[in-house]
Amino acid sequence: MQQIIDFILELDKLKGVTRKTRPLGLDRAENSAEHSWQIAMLAASLAPYAAPGVDIQRVIAMLLVHDIGEIDTGDTIVYAEEGQAERKAAEQVAVTRIFGLLPAAQAAAFMALWQEFDDAVSADARFAHAADRAMPVLLNLANKGQSWRENGISHQRVVKRIGPPIKDGCPALWDYLEQRLAQASTQGFFGGDAD
Amino acid sequence: MQQIIDFILELDKLKGVTRKTRPLGLDRAENSAEHSWQIAMLAASLAPYAAPGVDIQRVIAMLLVHDIGEIDTGDTIVYAEEGQAERKAAEQVAVTRIFGLLPAAQAAAFMALWQEFDDAVSADARFAHAADRAMPVLLNLANKGQSWRENGISHQRVVKRIGPPIKDGCPALWDYLEQRLAQASTQGFFGGDAD
Repeated sequence: MQQIIDFILELDKLKGVTRKTRPLGLDRAENSAEHSWQIAMLAASLAPYAAPGVDIQRVIAMLLVHDIGEIDTGDTIVYAEEGQAERKAAEQVAVTRIFGLLPAAQAAAFMALWQEFDDAVSADARFAHAADRAMPVLLNLANKGQSWRENGISHQRVVKRIGPPIKDGCPALWDYLEQRLAQASTQGFFGGDAD
Repeated sequence: MQQIIDFILELDKLKGVTRKTRPLGLDRAENSAEHSWQIAMLAASLAPYAAPGVDIQRVIAMLLVHDIGEIDTGDTIVYAEEGQAERKAAEQVAVTRIFGLLPAAQAAAFMALWQEFDDAVSADARFAHAADRAMPVLLNLANKGQSWRENGISHQRVVKRIGPPIKDGCPALWDYLEQRLAQASTQGFFGGDAD
């Protein structure tokens, strides 16, 4: 029991890991703990659009653990192009440490979920990635492109980076977002180079 | 799809609903969105201590939705003794509105989970309640009783209010907490009347 308690208190640190997006109407950065909750709810809500065979409960479990490595590494905006391999390796070290606080069987179960998300190969993981990628886009669309403008992210860069995983994991969601993103481009919601 | 998007953006407001507890080491109130994530992780981690037949995936789904009514009503500390029936009724109105943003089948699924948690009768709901009740206690034990001292909550009141549901839903967790709470009492972690 003490190992579980030590683990859950270590997880408290994810509430202090800040992202580039702001919650709607709030003057602070979103943190990775509340983001993890919201994407779990997004995946649950998108269940009717999941491919046959996708297990939404497993997708939710994956999304709840997928950002835990950021306790040691911090969050990096998805549009960062340098150092991806190094960040992945650092997150793996981090989750090995953090899940390692738990009894071995529970640690292995969380680690397997984390790894499956990171591998992004299974149908469950691909659907999970679509939810994870889509959420900051939805917030930006509702926020006049706040983090895109602040971080100099162009329309083209958004479409190139998040289009393929969302289209792959949840095609109906991408159909929706592609149109909204094109419209947002005409509204000046993007930063960076014009396109 | 637009209904799902409207719903998930409405949920963003839960990030602005503040609780009495502070995340460890942070100088701000915890919000109900990050709390929902943490208790889902607590329930998942406590799986080896769940009663036979408890479905942890359902428990997680229940915990993810159980505080959504607070978007309209705000959070109330568990030790408030007045107006519980009114608060429950107001939360029910709130979740009816919020889940009602979704297509009917998805709304009904979330509503059923919310109601099952609120009824606190099924084995899954009772285990979920144990996780929900235990989390602020664990934070307070790690925080020298921050919210107990700030809100004048005595040791006796904590034991009386959260003992029965935790003991009922997860006896091993209560055995652990009962000892930790007794120790905390000798350390001056409580407010209110001495006991």
